Amino acid sequence: MSYLDRIRACSRRDLSKYRPFQVDGVHIGFVRNDMAEAIRPYANVFTVTDRAVALDASLTTFDQRTAAVDTVLRRLSNTEIMSPWRNEPYAVTAAFGAPPLFAMERAAIPLFGIRAYGVHLNGYTGQGDRLAMWIGRRSRSKPTYPGLLDNTVAGGLPYGMTARKCLTNECEEEAGIPGDWAAKARAVGAITYCAEMKEGLRPDVLFCYDLALPPDFTPVCRDGELESFTLMPIQDVAAIVRDTEEFKFNCNLVIIDFLVRHGLIGPDDPDYVAIVQGLHQ
Amino acid sequence: MSYLDRIRACSRRDLSKYRPFQVDGVHIGFVRNDMAEAIRPYANVFTVTDRAVALDASLTTFDQRTAAVDTVLRRLSNTEIMSPWRNEPYAVTAAFGAPPLFAMERAAIPLFGIRAYGVHLNGYTGQGDRLAMWIGRRSRSKPTYPGLLDNTVAGGLPYGMTARKCLTNECEEEAGIPGDWAAKARAVGAITYCAEMKEGLRPDVLFCYDLALPPDFTPVCRDGELESFTLMPIQDVAAIVRDTEEFKFNCNLVIIDFLVRHGLIGPDDPDYVAIVQGLHQ
Repeated sequence: MSYLDRIRACSRRDLSKYRPFQVDGVHIGFVRNDMAEAIRPYANVFTVTDRAVALDASLTTFDQRTAAVDTVLRRLSNTEIMSPWRNEPYAVTAAFGAPPLFAMERAAIPLFGIRAYGVHLNGYTGQGDRLAMWIGRRSRSKPTYPGLLDNTVAGGLPYGMTARKCLTNECEEEAGIPGDWAAKARAVGAITYCAEMKEGLRPDVLFCYDLALPPDFTPVCRDGELESFTLMPIQDVAAIVRDTEEFKFNCNLVIIDFLVRHGLIGPDDPDYVAIVQGLHQ
Repeated sequence: MSYLDRIRACSRRDLSKYRPFQVDGVHIGFVRNDMAEAIRPYANVFTVTDRAVALDASLTTFDQRTAAVDTVLRRLSNTEIMSPWRNEPYAVTAAFGAPPLFAMERAAIPLFGIRAYGVHLNGYTGQGDRLAMWIGRRSRSKPTYPGLLDNTVAGGLPYGMTARKCLTNECEEEAGIPGDWAAKARAVGAITYCAEMKEGLRPDVLFCYDLALPPDFTPVCRDGELESFTLMPIQDVAAIVRDTEEFKFNCNLVIIDFLVRHGLIGPDDPDYVAIVQGLHQ
């Protein structure tokens, strides 16, 4: 088992199961074949062929597209194809920083292989060899990845919210970290991957943050997303990431990035270049 | 002018000017067409066709390959095609961490488009908004990139040396940073790029290190590589990188990576994802 195994788990995909998805002539995702067939009847919203899917050209504004797609997705939300409705609209854009083309319910995003963005926080105490990291365990009742280990704080970026605001909210709700502390969290980079998971294709970007927490603080989950927190020596965290699959798939990469930036994985590791490149696919 | 301009300057290349270079059936570089023609007469060492270059199959050991290539390169070293001989052998490998296939004089590495490795140090004082970075200016008499701004310490990784040992040596020689301080420099990642420069193709990896220096310390160049050092507020360093071409091309990327890791470029920048991905091509 190695760090590269965790990175490879975020690189595996079979694009033959997907069809390119275009909006206004611009490629913005990959629709899974079963989803393409499920939306084929809605010909006033989606133009589906055996080789591609396009949003109907008659839908030209943000509001038109959002409403039309929402109508279709709500019809499919009680079928087996979609995971439970989250009621969290995500922005659909041609590229980061570009104006949103429309908003789409989070549960459908991987079925259309649309890039999603998340914020993930490494909350730690101490420094050097004495670094310890607060690790969360996901609630057993969560619809996605129940019971797996997670970063101190993590959340998907909803439509219309800045990454910083999203981080501040999640810090408060998920770990009881007050806003003035969250404001001191340092943006330290982003990891990118394209993973095929049960829910679909995830060509995601995770914005990573580091926050040194006071030694006498214990995170408290307020929104039920996590069932517990444990402060673990960084060496133990590293071993769990390297040797097990106990973490949710993408949280491994956030921690590997932390280990790289803090010098706990270095150029003496023959996998170093592959690891650093693998965090930015 | 933007950070992305600096990254694009490290992404520009015209591969039609190069031919694939193989050793033992493995692709390890791109030989520039003029160099391919210059080595064509040495048919017992290189097999040159109009479409590719291969090291002759009769050369099977590290020592044989190193000696045979060296003989050819020494004949060409006084011609216009090669920059001045550096007398610094670099390892030629199929991948980072793989056993070296042979060693090659540094001046020829870009003419064969072989991946080279370097160590670059960000030496800084203070923190947060009060961060300041020691910036070197390259000697006007250096054969490569004379007079341009440079990182606090930087050097190419010679054959047979670890990155950490190389960093320690360069800290001492290039900036007068004692070994016990250099040992505290933190490995923080690597940047990768593939840039076509005057000297050839550079598909390089730079190992990056951060070192907090005492406020009363001033670097002193001992080996003549740099003519001066200046402690600059990080905001000034960022503006020079963003708005000018005063830095040597690849040093810009090391500083952009520093700005990303220290939260001085964040997800509020619409170029953020392109910047972070551009540092790891």
